[in-house]
Amino acid sequence: MNDLDSIAKLIRYYSLVMSSEAGSGHPTSSLSAADLMTGLVFGGTFKYDLDDPHHPNNDRLIFSKGHASPLFYSLWAAAGRVSEKEMLEFRKFTSSLEGHPTRDFKYTEAATGSLGQGLSIGVGMALNARYLDKLPYRTYVLLGDSEMAEGSQWEAMEIAAHYQLGNLIGIIDVNRLGQRGETMYGHDLSVYRDRVTAFGWEPIVIDGHYMPQILTAFKQATQAKDKPVMIIAKTLKGKGVSFIEDKNGWHGKPLKKDELARALRELGPIDKKAIGQIPKPENVRPAECGGSDIKPVSYSSDKPVATRHAYGTGLERIYPKYPHMVVLDAEVSNSTYSEIFKARYPERFFEMYIAEQNMMGNALGLSIRGKVPFVSTFAAFLTRAFDQIRMSQYSLANIKICGSHAGVSIGEDGSSQMGLEDIAMFRTLLNSVVLYPSDAVSAEKLVEEMAKHSGIAYIRTTRKETPILYRNDEVFRIGGSKVLRSSKADVAAVVAAGITLHEALRAYEELRQEGLLIQVIDLYSIKPVDVETLIQAARKTGLVITVEDHFAEGGLGEAVTNAVSSTGVPVYTLAVRKMPRSGTPDELLAYEEISHAAIVKEVKDKVKNRKRER
Amino acid sequence: MNDLDSIAKLIRYYSLVMSSEAGSGHPTSSLSAADLMTGLVFGGTFKYDLDDPHHPNNDRLIFSKGHASPLFYSLWAAAGRVSEKEMLEFRKFTSSLEGHPTRDFKYTEAATGSLGQGLSIGVGMALNARYLDKLPYRTYVLLGDSEMAEGSQWEAMEIAAHYQLGNLIGIIDVNRLGQRGETMYGHDLSVYRDRVTAFGWEPIVIDGHYMPQILTAFKQATQAKDKPVMIIAKTLKGKGVSFIEDKNGWHGKPLKKDELARALRELGPIDKKAIGQIPKPENVRPAECGGSDIKPVSYSSDKPVATRHAYGTGLERIYPKYPHMVVLDAEVSNSTYSEIFKARYPERFFEMYIAEQNMMGNALGLSIRGKVPFVSTFAAFLTRAFDQIRMSQYSLANIKICGSHAGVSIGEDGSSQMGLEDIAMFRTLLNSVVLYPSDAVSAEKLVEEMAKHSGIAYIRTTRKETPILYRNDEVFRIGGSKVLRSSKADVAAVVAAGITLHEALRAYEELRQEGLLIQVIDLYSIKPVDVETLIQAARKTGLVITVEDHFAEGGLGEAVTNAVSSTGVPVYTLAVRKMPRSGTPDELLAYEEISHAAIVKEVKDKVKNRKRER
Repeated sequence: MNDLDSIAKLIRYYSLVMSSEAGSGHPTSSLSAADLMTGLVFGGTFKYDLDDPHHPNNDRLIFSKGHASPLFYSLWAAAGRVSEKEMLEFRKFTSSLEGHPTRDFKYTEAATGSLGQGLSIGVGMALNARYLDKLPYRTYVLLGDSEMAEGSQWEAMEIAAHYQLGNLIGIIDVNRLGQRGETMYGHDLSVYRDRVTAFGWEPIVIDGHYMPQILTAFKQATQAKDKPVMIIAKTLKGKGVSFIEDKNGWHGKPLKKDELARALRELGPIDKKAIGQIPKPENVRPAECGGSDIKPVSYSSDKPVATRHAYGTGLERIYPKYPHMVVLDAEVSNSTYSEIFKARYPERFFEMYIAEQNMMGNALGLSIRGKVPFVSTFAAFLTRAFDQIRMSQYSLANIKICGSHAGVSIGEDGSSQMGLEDIAMFRTLLNSVVLYPSDAVSAEKLVEEMAKHSGIAYIRTTRKETPILYRNDEVFRIGGSKVLRSSKADVAAVVAAGITLHEALRAYEELRQEGLLIQVIDLYSIKPVDVETLIQAARKTGLVITVEDHFAEGGLGEAVTNAVSSTGVPVYTLAVRKMPRSGTPDELLAYEEISHAAIVKEVKDKVKNRKRER
Repeated sequence: MNDLDSIAKLIRYYSLVMSSEAGSGHPTSSLSAADLMTGLVFGGTFKYDLDDPHHPNNDRLIFSKGHASPLFYSLWAAAGRVSEKEMLEFRKFTSSLEGHPTRDFKYTEAATGSLGQGLSIGVGMALNARYLDKLPYRTYVLLGDSEMAEGSQWEAMEIAAHYQLGNLIGIIDVNRLGQRGETMYGHDLSVYRDRVTAFGWEPIVIDGHYMPQILTAFKQATQAKDKPVMIIAKTLKGKGVSFIEDKNGWHGKPLKKDELARALRELGPIDKKAIGQIPKPENVRPAECGGSDIKPVSYSSDKPVATRHAYGTGLERIYPKYPHMVVLDAEVSNSTYSEIFKARYPERFFEMYIAEQNMMGNALGLSIRGKVPFVSTFAAFLTRAFDQIRMSQYSLANIKICGSHAGVSIGEDGSSQMGLEDIAMFRTLLNSVVLYPSDAVSAEKLVEEMAKHSGIAYIRTTRKETPILYRNDEVFRIGGSKVLRSSKADVAAVVAAGITLHEALRAYEELRQEGLLIQVIDLYSIKPVDVETLIQAARKTGLVITVEDHFAEGGLGEAVTNAVSSTGVPVYTLAVRKMPRSGTPDELLAYEEISHAAIVKEVKDKVKNRKRER
């Protein structure tokens, strides 16, 4: 039996000392939850194999309030797995104990630090336990009271209740104080209780510094069947050190040397040998699932198919070969066509309703538990989850994202539904993949490339049906491109993808009638981009024109401009530059000057200018 | 007294006919709320001067469920302000009646269509009425039940209750059906009632097709003092047409010709002369406020100041001259330094807590009501509100946004807190302004340029103190830049902004020691970008190197590459390309190869290569 008081005291000691040594960090936010986390991790409830952090049946612990990292690291120190020397390297460049937890530290489940994201990640892990791996592990998420203001929390709450995640336990550390002052509700725990109840969770209200209540609460929480449980704990920020306890103005401030000495005197003698024991989990593992053969892609060249439709068909086709796949959609599966997968494999599909932030967080949780989530909604609405997408790169996520209804070419629905900034958004991510197929064959092939690839990959699909451009056995690769038209007499290279590639092909025909030949490149992989082919095209033609159904910044045009900058060949970018509106797709392509006619005009203008300059 | 039954029938007629004529649109989502909106607009509660949509005391009506645009336009047709001919132009390129409402249509308050945003906009308008303009107008927001899954709704709910907005009335049209099937709660209105209550609103549950209940509910809602009211109405999607009523599979589908004929037969005779009357509002207006003189900028050149601090100082300094300003912050005002403004003008400051989406929606509502909101949080957390930011461009917003703690140079807090994609995000917006000052003088001057400018403007600030570079009387302009070092012998132009400009200046000194001179440009306006100066620099030096504390895509580097592409001069970009982590600012700048040393190396490498090529 662990001596919880000694452990809690040791954890407070570490939290104070490591942040003072670092000269930054959040000791007071750590102290408020020190008893709660000691009770959870060392009170007998939490099951974890310290020698095997990857054990599929370990309980999961996520610090949504990631700034309480001193507490988080201290827990593992108190378990005997981080030395005091390592603790004192906190926040240093060479240490895996970063300012906010990252997966550099082996016991971190997911990188946190942008508030209001941990619960969604936990929901993903709990969905995995209950519906996919079918394992008894539980997922615990430590939440701050300030971050309960984030709407994403309530998305996670409603989805957890909807999916009856009795294996998910949240703990709200109600320490009353945010960064710059009091929270909206201070110590009024009834507000949290009522909201939690209204969102379908079981609330347990406790004193977060009274160990018997803490232990009882966790015990009670593990009795839950089909309802997630929220422990709402009244705590004091800085608890245990009188001159910072429950005081405003101490957020994110370590104690200075003399203050630390005073605090440690108050804390009294520490037993550094108070190593806490954690019981191991039941050694059960998910059923093995091997991949099996799949049918080849099969389109007839005379029937146009929307790439969004090919996305759905592709998901369904490849699943047998990639059995870790799971598909999520935000209430638009009949538009993104992920419903094709859902109809065939309903047990691998999760309806996420209109709550994109939580969907992305759930995908991250599933990804960390070894699944390969394919997530879809309109490209425009993915902007809703940019913070979650951004954070998932720091969790080394393996997530595949599809944004449908890209561009002004969706037509009549108007600007609110047009994804015009998605390429820019996804290009910013480190090592991300951004794909933009122009026909159903390439769309399906690229869906499979995404499944093979490890990391964050985005595919942009088009609403309209588009002609088939490729043979069913054509090969596509991440980082590739296709030169569709080329001759020795090309006066320019036109680079496009998606709907504008078809405009470029039409422009090619029109220019050819007038005796002008152009190279046409299908840049289906916008990141990584096929620098070699682009540079060749630039050098050969001396003039590059890009065309995209996307805003002018951060998209295909800038990717190409950047790729060929060293050649000295100028790049001209046709892109969406006027306020988009309702209309037919053709009207809008013409209006935004990204149509075949605009390409023809641009080629002729630029070729003429060049001649003049000579 | 209006004949509400005739009006509701006429509105149903228009909703059906206009969407059938357009061949797309959302008639069923319009029919469910037709009685509710008829009761509101023509039942005597709603006050509006149809001849003066800009009257400051008009009640405000926002369709958060923007896809019910046929209903929205039909209301104004029933008020006699849109002709049937205009109605039949719905969704056409030349019509102001777009697929989802935009401000092209004169009675639209704000563009909607990305769900879960209208309530926040309404909160902004209600905040304005209660705290700023001090006018008796009320704000009404029509909400869909599906969109209540969006977390942003609950952010708006909590803030509205916190600010005691008794002048805000929401109406949830609980028609049970989303796009692809049933909502999470179907017709269980108790779920909405309990949640609304728990979030501090007064719920009124009604039958949304029974006019006496509807009228009573709106009457009751106007009695509210300090609590916002939510009318929760049970409705049927497609109400009034038996074969689509309460049927799944009819979302976003207009009736075909024969179906329409059948529906109109069911509807029975229509009285197109049933013009509804709307009482005018009390003719009160906000107090006039004229600007007065302000103090000049005043920094001493020997004391470094963080640009984030200058942001706060700037807000406080310029307010007397720009009395329409209002400042919002998401619980980090002591980090962004908007607290300097708050301390001096508490009545013009709104604490928005950790709920960035709602903050941005509130700002839009305030902007539409003539205020000039300055909104701040960490640059990283602005990604949370990208969808709201994206949508605000379609509402022709006049919003000023500040993202602090940009870049890896924040140091020890680590990746989660580092804004590394904010420039890319804000550059995508049509006609946006993106500013990135390097010292306190330029920061303050640019804050004032933002206040003067009409539109969306972003300023990126730095955590660290940086030296003063400019005299207090130096002039800065949107679209400008400063050449800080220049000579006839420059071997390259180094373009930077913010923290990296100081690295570039240091690199200049180091290179000068070695006999190499470079031009150094402060690109404080990244969008619009100073194309002329950049092209001159490129032509003069034949080599451009950019350095930025931002990911490589969509940022300063691509903006410059694009700007000078026509010159044929190559641009090389130093940017954040490795997984950032905790460490000191200097360690991280070095690690990411955006430090003075990296600039020196890049200049030398590229100059050497150029010589070799010659």
